[in-house]
Amino acid sequence: MSRTVLMLPGDGIGPEIVAEAEKVLHRINDSFELGLSFESGLVGGAAIDETGEPLPNETLERARKVDAILLGAVGGPKWDKLEMAKRPEKGLLGLRSNLELFANLRPAILYPQLASASSLKPEVVSGLDIMIVRELTGGIYFGQPRGIRELEGGERQGFNTYVYSESEIRRIGRVAFEAARQRKGRLCSVDKANVLEVTVLWREIMDELAGEYPDVELSHMYVDNAAMQLVRAPKQFDVIVTGNMFGDILSDEAAMLTGSIGMLPSASLNSEKQGMYEPCHGSAPDIAGQGIANPLATILSGAMMLRYSLGEEEAAKAIEAAVSKVLDQGLRTADIMSEGARQVSTREMGEAVLAAL
Amino acid sequence: MSRTVLMLPGDGIGPEIVAEAEKVLHRINDSFELGLSFESGLVGGAAIDETGEPLPNETLERARKVDAILLGAVGGPKWDKLEMAKRPEKGLLGLRSNLELFANLRPAILYPQLASASSLKPEVVSGLDIMIVRELTGGIYFGQPRGIRELEGGERQGFNTYVYSESEIRRIGRVAFEAARQRKGRLCSVDKANVLEVTVLWREIMDELAGEYPDVELSHMYVDNAAMQLVRAPKQFDVIVTGNMFGDILSDEAAMLTGSIGMLPSASLNSEKQGMYEPCHGSAPDIAGQGIANPLATILSGAMMLRYSLGEEEAAKAIEAAVSKVLDQGLRTADIMSEGARQVSTREMGEAVLAAL
Ligand SMILES: CC(C)[C@H](C(=O)O)[C@@H](O)C(=O)O
Ligand SMILES: CC(C)[C@H](C(=O)O)[C@@H](O)C(=O)O
Repeated sequence: MSRTVLMLPGDGIGPEIVAEAEKVLHRINDSFELGLSFESGLVGGAAIDETGEPLPNETLERARKVDAILLGAVGGPKWDKLEMAKRPEKGLLGLRSNLELFANLRPAILYPQLASASSLKPEVVSGLDIMIVRELTGGIYFGQPRGIRELEGGERQGFNTYVYSESEIRRIGRVAFEAARQRKGRLCSVDKANVLEVTVLWREIMDELAGEYPDVELSHMYVDNAAMQLVRAPKQFDVIVTGNMFGDILSDEAAMLTGSIGMLPSASLNSEKQGMYEPCHGSAPDIAGQGIANPLATILSGAMMLRYSLGEEEAAKAIEAAVSKVLDQGLRTADIMSEGARQVSTREMGEAVLAAL
Repeated sequence: MSRTVLMLPGDGIGPEIVAEAEKVLHRINDSFELGLSFESGLVGGAAIDETGEPLPNETLERARKVDAILLGAVGGPKWDKLEMAKRPEKGLLGLRSNLELFANLRPAILYPQLASASSLKPEVVSGLDIMIVRELTGGIYFGQPRGIRELEGGERQGFNTYVYSESEIRRIGRVAFEAARQRKGRLCSVDKANVLEVTVLWREIMDELAGEYPDVELSHMYVDNAAMQLVRAPKQFDVIVTGNMFGDILSDEAAMLTGSIGMLPSASLNSEKQGMYEPCHGSAPDIAGQGIANPLATILSGAMMLRYSLGEEEAAKAIEAAVSKVLDQGLRTADIMSEGARQVSTREMGEAVLAAL
């Protein structure tokens, strides 16, 4: 059984952090005799510079064939003036939709060693452990029609379409109910069913699925209230399931509750468990090339990859334990630095994880 | 000059809190000789129960004629099973759109007396004073087409349309630039211009307006990042301008940063400065009828009404000063109660404000 992982470093700090994750995965591959082989490719701004396209055909073809993808980040001011179809983000969105990676899992976990990094009071966030399940290949991100048109009289109008079918809702709902079942058994579905018809259907399908999962306690919350409750009392949540746009907003808000977004991995899966794994943070162009970025979210994304796409739970746990160990040792990159800790570079952090393995 | 204010208590705690605000406004009307007359009407669930409609024609006709409206809140579980067109929320949305109340002003202010109520660390939120300018009569709330349709093959699909024209963006943009000009001169426009075409147009128009307001510093932020930055470092913001849906989410998130949403008023204005004023919080059906709700957000909404629609700055300031005074006196309703303070009922709080006037 030969399995292949595609590395897509992308832009900004992407190459630096993926390099460290790659070293960790190579080491794990050897020590656990996983038989993984590694390829790498271009996506985002890096691909635009090289080929003119944010998602070159060659990258897409390879992506289709591999078992899993580890992505750094895409985008940056250099490409911000391009028309939307040619921007780095389209590389990411193209991978998501072409591979049908509809299930985006975004944990928001507070590491006890980093509790003080949060802007919230310790008692509000200590022990925080939320899983956000975001639909990733539908909703307003991909809905048609879309564009900017000219109205009679000459003024322009921009428009996008927020759309979900029953089957799209059902498949993301199942992923969320399964996730809740393996956790504390509580699922909160977030919508705006008092205003938007598309989310009336969303709510209806979630209620219908609840019958299949009697062991999971389903609740519903409007998105504005969810944005508030995450600030007020985030520990009330176990698993949250929501659409693409609300998920984009709430998962970033939830991640920031921990104060250490440089620590948070994510997984995007399709129905064959093929997956793309990436840190929750962006390409951070302001600190790119300085060797100070935090590689831990990418390293932990590697662990998620081993768990969800490659079925290598032991190897995943080994990486997570190594990360925990370096935090215990007091090593910190600049973004999570605090008094009394030792500040290290991107590479030093990567080396420390290797040593801890 | 005779000016009329329409009171719409609505549902849940609405009647209790509006009753206190009404007493305060009557007193101010007398002492400042404002010559206001007051009417009241039905909206939301209360109107459904009485007339079958969330926005009876009579209410709408009166609303069109008055100078300003003070609304409590609408909605509750009692009406949650009704089809969308007949729900209490449609009363609120119908008033907003029929009166073209496109400019929603939502301050998020931390009262120094209530600093400890926030779930954020004191240094992160002390002195917080953000103004969110939300577009209120367009965007996905009102976009057509919308609904739930049957696809070929029999499955259903829900859909809504996110749409803005140049002129809609321009008029809310102007309100926001003007607000920034009267504050610290910084305006952050929030969009998702890396994914949604409608917000590409939004960003373009905001950039264009910036030329007319050289004294205001305009920046742009993606909505996911804004949701994060509000948690990480909310004091970086002065005025935020955004569309209806993002504004719904971010204004509630920002309000909750203060920990005392029971204190926050809001204004919804049209181009003639006619306005509807309401507390930021909802109808709180769980505590309705118990006499424990906080009337201060509604009382402060009355102050906003005097300021923005009636041009009575002195009277507005008198109310705000009275509210500050009762907080200094240590009086607190249950939602903002803390050690060492004196807990009072809805009515006692209203009486205390009257006494402080
Ligand atoms: C880069 C952008 C297109 C993307 C998104 O909006 O999905 C990012 O914010 C994310 O959450 O992965
Ligand atoms: C009640 C609801 C329709 C409303 C909205 O979504 O606008 C409320 O949340 C608000 O923010 O005023």
